[in-house]
Amino acid sequence: MSRTAGRRVAIVGATGAVGEELLLVLAARAFPVSQLSLLASERSAGQQLRFRGELVPVQALADDSFRGVELALFSAGAAVARQWAPRAVAAGAVVVDNSSAFRQQDDVPLVVPEVNAAALRGHRGLIANPNCSTIILVLALAPLHAAAGLAAVVVATYQAASGAGRQALLELRRGAAAALAGEPFTPAALPHALGFNLFPRVDVFGPDGYTREEDKLQHESRKILGVEALAVEATCVRVPVERCHSEAVAVALQRPLLPAAARALFARSPGLVVQDDPEHSIYPQPLLQAGRDAVAVGRIRHSRVFDPGLAFWLVGDQLRKGAALNAVQIAELV
Amino acid sequence: MSRTAGRRVAIVGATGAVGEELLLVLAARAFPVSQLSLLASERSAGQQLRFRGELVPVQALADDSFRGVELALFSAGAAVARQWAPRAVAAGAVVVDNSSAFRQQDDVPLVVPEVNAAALRGHRGLIANPNCSTIILVLALAPLHAAAGLAAVVVATYQAASGAGRQALLELRRGAAAALAGEPFTPAALPHALGFNLFPRVDVFGPDGYTREEDKLQHESRKILGVEALAVEATCVRVPVERCHSEAVAVALQRPLLPAAARALFARSPGLVVQDDPEHSIYPQPLLQAGRDAVAVGRIRHSRVFDPGLAFWLVGDQLRKGAALNAVQIAELV
Repeated sequence: MSRTAGRRVAIVGATGAVGEELLLVLAARAFPVSQLSLLASERSAGQQLRFRGELVPVQALADDSFRGVELALFSAGAAVARQWAPRAVAAGAVVVDNSSAFRQQDDVPLVVPEVNAAALRGHRGLIANPNCSTIILVLALAPLHAAAGLAAVVVATYQAASGAGRQALLELRRGAAAALAGEPFTPAALPHALGFNLFPRVDVFGPDGYTREEDKLQHESRKILGVEALAVEATCVRVPVERCHSEAVAVALQRPLLPAAARALFARSPGLVVQDDPEHSIYPQPLLQAGRDAVAVGRIRHSRVFDPGLAFWLVGDQLRKGAALNAVQIAELV
Repeated sequence: MSRTAGRRVAIVGATGAVGEELLLVLAARAFPVSQLSLLASERSAGQQLRFRGELVPVQALADDSFRGVELALFSAGAAVARQWAPRAVAAGAVVVDNSSAFRQQDDVPLVVPEVNAAALRGHRGLIANPNCSTIILVLALAPLHAAAGLAAVVVATYQAASGAGRQALLELRRGAAAALAGEPFTPAALPHALGFNLFPRVDVFGPDGYTREEDKLQHESRKILGVEALAVEATCVRVPVERCHSEAVAVALQRPLLPAAARALFARSPGLVVQDDPEHSIYPQPLLQAGRDAVAVGRIRHSRVFDPGLAFWLVGDQLRKGAALNAVQIAELV
């Protein structure tokens, strides 16, 4: 498709869960798109996806895919990004990559616009979108760090099936239906049955017993917040939720911050919305936050372990702010 | 029913999720029962429940319900326990109460047999069964405390629907079916829809923003472990799982303890089973632990925040070891 004004945009991994969300977010934010290339693997080529009411064909990634492209939004995993993102940059495109391939490279900004937009200055055509759980977490950590200095973070996650992709989401639904019907079910997209189950594994394990997802929460938070040695202890868990990651967080602070002050701080922090009125059963929940841009924070209270410190609860749509929205916000800035 | 040898036993709250589990556990452990009274509210009276293949009628609680009863297992909530447990004790029965009514009373032992069986000495006829989440947690904390001294605990829970009772379990199934069918669903037993959702609320909120469930994890752990000022920071979350509570735990220790040493320690601790081989996708999961006596521990690793400290992951069947089994184990000891 083409329009008279705007950018020539390519989406790599267009048929995935994040790719689909990118199309919705670009349209919802009226991002100026003059030409749109939807790119995917050979397997998905030939499909058509709807963008602003028009059907756009999906093409297989090829050597000339990025000719004339000004902005390439990648959401196709690290292997595809490593192979194709440098070619897109060489062809003159700015790449925003949603994979982990380049996030820890010193010359690649890792950006959550509400937190560290300044890191985009002097980029070399390649910008990394952080891990979804990290984006949700740092939106809350950043204002706390500015106000009271972060000393340490303990986080347990409750991560939705769609964080593992569209097939995992469909598998959750099929598995839950099978469980309700008392029928056997063999998972394929996920390592274990997820219907009415959960498991403490997101991504692969490293030699120290932590998963890469748990590593990312520490490494990426450090880079985005600019706190080199910040200790982030994470347990990442896949739960039978379709959409939205939740996080139970306890933070040690360098200076005291009352829960009421943190609540006020969060309320004026961009990208966050406070839902914290437990007496009236108001606290963030995945079902309520799905499809929303903001990350919700609630259950804000004194920590019982860290003094000074706080505990709180986050829920964010990991396909939206955790991936597609954040990438488009980056694109809007560059 | 009556048999020639054994104890005269009453179960109060026999028709509930824990009551049903008590019948299974008494039978499975061949607990010597010479006479069994199944007691419940007026509403449930007249039902019949199966015990060792025989149908036993459910009777409404009445003034003479405890005449001749030697052991009364209560699982009927705090209000019923406050009203009826003292009468059962006055009638000569030993009461093991599964509610929170008496747990913090100084003259009431709060017992997890593998941890503090000695607390049963000198009991006055009333023994409290701890909260289900606490039982699961202290089974792992106790050996760590003995070996390396606990300094602080941060825990996030993933609590099954059946922890809120049989109606909540049925409601999870109905709600999930409605969600799969795209139909609306209004929760009644639970405060929010739980199918493909979760919420950071188990029990009611106190003025400091913590729920009573979160308070229990701190207060009951202190009493059972005998560590007066132990800081336990908890976030308790209801998840769309039918059975088994999971817990992500980080502990600060007073003395270093390597993960391998903790693994060996857990492996020889009664009530625990180690499932910790992530490379082969082995870690505790609710679906795999349902109906089992042991609490499973895995993901044992260095803490990244507490030094010395550890992180690990627990899953236990909260109806079994978290309630019925623990109560019967107590009964076996007294």
